[in-house]
Amino acid sequence: MNINYFMPTRVVLGADCIFSNRAFLGGLGKKALIVSGKNSARANGSLADTVKALEANGQSSFLYDRVMSNPTVDCAYEAADAISREGCDFIIALGGGSPMDAAKVAALLALNRVEKPALFGAAFTTALPIAAVPTTAGTGSEVTPYAILTNDVARTKTSIGTPAIFPRYAFLDARYTLGLSPAITINTAIDALSHAVEGMLSVKASAITNALARESISVIAGCFGALGEGRAPDIGIRERLLYGSMTAGMVIAHTGTTAVHPMGYTLTYNHNIDHGRANGLIFAEFLKIIEKKEKDGSRRIPAILSALGMKSLDEFTAVLDRLLGKKERFETAVLEGYAAQAAKAKNIANCVIRLEEEDLLEIFKRSIG
Amino acid sequence: MNINYFMPTRVVLGADCIFSNRAFLGGLGKKALIVSGKNSARANGSLADTVKALEANGQSSFLYDRVMSNPTVDCAYEAADAISREGCDFIIALGGGSPMDAAKVAALLALNRVEKPALFGAAFTTALPIAAVPTTAGTGSEVTPYAILTNDVARTKTSIGTPAIFPRYAFLDARYTLGLSPAITINTAIDALSHAVEGMLSVKASAITNALARESISVIAGCFGALGEGRAPDIGIRERLLYGSMTAGMVIAHTGTTAVHPMGYTLTYNHNIDHGRANGLIFAEFLKIIEKKEKDGSRRIPAILSALGMKSLDEFTAVLDRLLGKKERFETAVLEGYAAQAAKAKNIANCVIRLEEEDLLEIFKRSIG
Repeated sequence: MNINYFMPTRVVLGADCIFSNRAFLGGLGKKALIVSGKNSARANGSLADTVKALEANGQSSFLYDRVMSNPTVDCAYEAADAISREGCDFIIALGGGSPMDAAKVAALLALNRVEKPALFGAAFTTALPIAAVPTTAGTGSEVTPYAILTNDVARTKTSIGTPAIFPRYAFLDARYTLGLSPAITINTAIDALSHAVEGMLSVKASAITNALARESISVIAGCFGALGEGRAPDIGIRERLLYGSMTAGMVIAHTGTTAVHPMGYTLTYNHNIDHGRANGLIFAEFLKIIEKKEKDGSRRIPAILSALGMKSLDEFTAVLDRLLGKKERFETAVLEGYAAQAAKAKNIANCVIRLEEEDLLEIFKRSIG
Repeated sequence: MNINYFMPTRVVLGADCIFSNRAFLGGLGKKALIVSGKNSARANGSLADTVKALEANGQSSFLYDRVMSNPTVDCAYEAADAISREGCDFIIALGGGSPMDAAKVAALLALNRVEKPALFGAAFTTALPIAAVPTTAGTGSEVTPYAILTNDVARTKTSIGTPAIFPRYAFLDARYTLGLSPAITINTAIDALSHAVEGMLSVKASAITNALARESISVIAGCFGALGEGRAPDIGIRERLLYGSMTAGMVIAHTGTTAVHPMGYTLTYNHNIDHGRANGLIFAEFLKIIEKKEKDGSRRIPAILSALGMKSLDEFTAVLDRLLGKKERFETAVLEGYAAQAAKAKNIANCVIRLEEEDLLEIFKRSIG
């Protein structure tokens, strides 16, 4: 047994948790840069709650609300410029993965002068303190040391990882997710589920990350019935999804992802298929190939099925199919290109079962061929 | 759902984990105060491994090896004096709960001038950094913000709690526990199990502490067969017990304990019965009374039984009876005094089921009457 476990983020979950725990924010500094997308933080109430908590603390803030989906390097630098121009000394990120990840990089740039071309190669050890308020239940970025930005030079998304960008606080208030559409709710739930499941299949998995992954899988799978009804789920389900997504984030903070994510990225990059949906499209066939190749007696797939509360991967396939609806289909020649592209990702080597390019192609063909 | 989860200690587990992770120690300071009991750290190899790691880092150290069982306030002050006299800037604790708890208080005293009579009432926010090396698998102190000292004035044991004394690092190398006798191994395992189970019955339990508690219970109960054989367990079992004890520590770091601990303290205080054994003596009957009173449909006892892998509390009783051997017995009049004493403990109110003094007496009488 080997463990190297580190999860320094304080996680607070519950209705009105930002305001009731505003004393935590009070310790972070004098003036916050609030980082968000253009609209959602206003619409879901997280911005108003944050400003109210800061005002009650006597803290001031400046709003940087220009984070787009799949944020760019320029965006992170722009946020960092706002920090120095406005004299902010801590950061509060409101949103899905995009604002949280842009905020993390801005937190690094505020304390470290790095030119843009050197960003992805730089080694960082310090950052401004960050509080994260997830407003989707998918990314888990509120408890990870990673930030993922669009890398225009390499024409892909690239991850920056350092313990310095673990948020100090994660405030999880499921009311901010109530307005998410059924489709976004399903896609983000599948994304979170793929984090937990891939985490159990990572070479970096340990007993404690597996325990958290089983918890996450069990909680998220317990919401599938409600998600399959096509209606927006109630606050109880929303809260469980947010909790499941956070625990999955604690898993990938240690394990990283494996093959589903780089495979899904090719679909997102080339066809703009939503990240969670892209993962969902190939998820079950990925597990089937792992099941076929798992010869070491470690029984990981049975452990995953047990956490899912399911008897077989065929059952899992049927559940996902119901949630995803009509699937996209692609020609083999196209999928060959994506398999080749995904095979180059370093995450692939992170999987306990060695997957070759031909395995990835097989997964693609069976899923969306 | 409400969560307030904070676990800032980095946990490293594995053979030779101190030396292989000596870079972590390297960041803590220039000179360590090593805190231990008189003999065990020398005998189990933890002292030699620690000194070797420090020397490889170019760090110096001073050994304070005068911590006794159930350490006193004087002992913690003596260790703090050694810190200032020797110019130490961080602390490494080697041992069971006693050296770890004494080290934690010394870490507070090194940065805060507090007279002895004011110690238990003082509010602390700063401490020297601590690395903890547990050499028993019971206390979980390596991942808690608590230190428990003998309070000679109040004639009991009193806890000091502040996030400042969360160890920065916990190094878990099960080789240091190989020399523990079968009886000590059983007693400490039961202590750890009672942390996890009491944590699930605490009013402060949350989804994530329950997930960690189920993991701990499942892992420790999985070792009961080996423990019942009367032989010293092998390294594989030792490692699982150490992991189970650590995860139980993560639970009580959030939940505290409930009724078993204060009831057990009366037996330890009055009859010098080992702490883990004292808990074990009353553990099953405590759960039976909870089962009887649990009317809110929360099904906590079934969840605990499921984690234990057992069908009923009678089965749990039988397993504990086998591990504990012949039980101590006491007159009702004596037990009435202990019930009255335990009923005053604040932990009692921490239990999800309200237990009156008569309930505690009932538990005592059925267990050891």
